[in-house]
Amino acid sequence: MPGLIDTHIHASQYVYTGTAMELHLLDWLKNYTYPIEANFEDLKFAEDVYQKAVKRVLKNGTTTACYFATIHVDATLKLCDIVENAGQRAYIGKVNMDAYSPHYYVETTQESKEETEKFVTKILKKNNPLIKPVITPRFAPNCTLELSKYLGHLAKQYDLPIQSHISETTDEVEWVKELFPGSKHYADVYDQCNLLTDKTVMAHGVYLSDEELKLFKSTGTGISHCPNSNLSLRSGMMDARRVLDMGVKLGLGTDVSGGYHPSMLDAIRTAVQVSNVISLDMHTDYKSLSHREAFKLATLGGSEVLGLSDKTGNFEVGKEFDALLVDTTVVEGPVDIFKRDSTDDIIQKFLFLGDDRNIQEVYVAGKQVL
Amino acid sequence: MPGLIDTHIHASQYVYTGTAMELHLLDWLKNYTYPIEANFEDLKFAEDVYQKAVKRVLKNGTTTACYFATIHVDATLKLCDIVENAGQRAYIGKVNMDAYSPHYYVETTQESKEETEKFVTKILKKNNPLIKPVITPRFAPNCTLELSKYLGHLAKQYDLPIQSHISETTDEVEWVKELFPGSKHYADVYDQCNLLTDKTVMAHGVYLSDEELKLFKSTGTGISHCPNSNLSLRSGMMDARRVLDMGVKLGLGTDVSGGYHPSMLDAIRTAVQVSNVISLDMHTDYKSLSHREAFKLATLGGSEVLGLSDKTGNFEVGKEFDALLVDTTVVEGPVDIFKRDSTDDIIQKFLFLGDDRNIQEVYVAGKQVL
Repeated sequence: MPGLIDTHIHASQYVYTGTAMELHLLDWLKNYTYPIEANFEDLKFAEDVYQKAVKRVLKNGTTTACYFATIHVDATLKLCDIVENAGQRAYIGKVNMDAYSPHYYVETTQESKEETEKFVTKILKKNNPLIKPVITPRFAPNCTLELSKYLGHLAKQYDLPIQSHISETTDEVEWVKELFPGSKHYADVYDQCNLLTDKTVMAHGVYLSDEELKLFKSTGTGISHCPNSNLSLRSGMMDARRVLDMGVKLGLGTDVSGGYHPSMLDAIRTAVQVSNVISLDMHTDYKSLSHREAFKLATLGGSEVLGLSDKTGNFEVGKEFDALLVDTTVVEGPVDIFKRDSTDDIIQKFLFLGDDRNIQEVYVAGKQVL
Repeated sequence: MPGLIDTHIHASQYVYTGTAMELHLLDWLKNYTYPIEANFEDLKFAEDVYQKAVKRVLKNGTTTACYFATIHVDATLKLCDIVENAGQRAYIGKVNMDAYSPHYYVETTQESKEETEKFVTKILKKNNPLIKPVITPRFAPNCTLELSKYLGHLAKQYDLPIQSHISETTDEVEWVKELFPGSKHYADVYDQCNLLTDKTVMAHGVYLSDEELKLFKSTGTGISHCPNSNLSLRSGMMDARRVLDMGVKLGLGTDVSGGYHPSMLDAIRTAVQVSNVISLDMHTDYKSLSHREAFKLATLGGSEVLGLSDKTGNFEVGKEFDALLVDTTVVEGPVDIFKRDSTDDIIQKFLFLGDDRNIQEVYVAGKQVL
């Protein structure tokens, strides 16, 4: 099958994935995320976490990942080296934060600009066709408009992808409204800084209005739907059907560690479950996501969101070979197959019950990496 | 840690777990469940499925299971043999169905009575302290009142536990209202037949009224909360907090294969997620289930629901040793532990990210069975 595409994962947060889920987003950032990310100034710590994170997601069949790192250039370059050595396809972002950040984990606007351009040019110089720097303003509250505008400019100058967060929780949406009274809505804050492009992926988008989704469509901006994270942090439920019906590009993300699971198989399962829950309150002809649709989001959908559908996402002629060899009959594996199972049953059993034990080989751009 | 207790699992449905989840309950029964369960007349087929099902759940750390089999006595006796050989603690039920069942999968009232007593006496004669027959009317619509009353009588005569389903979907609740106009509510149908006892476990209970929950409390009836099933079949969301606050006994169930996952770790995770979703619409001091509470439901809660809290559910002095040896550092396992992880972090990582690879040894009643 085609390799899985994780459109939103914080490699730096892998260290505490599966823990610390009792707070809502804004308190969670303050109490867990910022203090832990601050540790990535320590390169040895960073290397240990990034090694384990990249190994883990590759083992789970993620051939392409769109990573958030931290604000630290050196540690983020370390992540690039690790990804390069592992042979994974990736977008890697040095995070920008010059506002409403704790004193121990913040940049000045000037530092943030300089460090980002330094990071971008270093990665581009490597000329690795699999790895691209991605412009990464953390989310609107964490960046001054001056910085955000500069980042929009930088993305254009170097023709780079952009990633950020939007409308993950109601508290956050309210806060953005207070912070940016001159903006029509949350999406407008980014749009004013030229951060909504056909190479932009915005994580979450749980509470986007129709107007904002139309802006996403007209600018070509994609959404990374992170259902596990939205449930785990009690952020809300994103209606994937609505986004698809409005013609907005949509992929799936694990959002480690807002989401507790580093496997895109979990993202597929949880996307189906969340869509099922949403369907409970809908009219009877509302169709919740099928496993086929969720699978498509985790592969082709992700490639579209990342602007990589000419290279990966399925096995169309002309694309590069990002692939998994899946065996549902592996000894001591998690799946039992019976004589009566059809091919579609076997596929479903892998999607709902399978894990890394069933992923026997992993290929990126034609090269076997696991 | 204490062994996990699955308070609701259809061993016979394991054959198609992970598949066939696009229909709602009543159509799902008609199109998938009844036709597949009918195959258990074939003992060879039954043996293959039951072998795999019991091996799978034991591997996942389920030391006690409350099984639904099918209407067939011989196949259900085969399940007993397999469970006995595996060394698992279990309640095993031959299903009763003499109404609103397809022509190819139904009993006459007389057959159902005779076969059930035959099954019960055969199992009791084995005198295996780990295995008990459980009286198993499928659900109210599938049994005539005559049969249900007989089953209530039989349970009393032999001092047996009882299991069934209640209030899983709104369609089902409406149907029960039509079928039993003489009953105050769904729970009353069972109560009239003396099927609500302090040895009864009712699966689901998504739509129970306060009055019904009070009846559960006064009769000592417990609920098996099956969150994966409720999401997968789009049945609804059971508010575990409400049930606990009303003092009703509560355990967790996989409900294979309405639920797609045979592991109680999945039941723990999904119970937390469902509780999180419910909290979205609640006042701010509503507390969604913590991982600690979900863990308790999967162990001690399950033992209370099954009337086995004198034997299992935790490590209190005087109980039997039903236990798992868990190792989160196992090579090629699914969990990464970091230096900064506290003991509680490690426990959370196992609960949210762990799987059968972390379960190194399994003990039931002091004997190592895996």
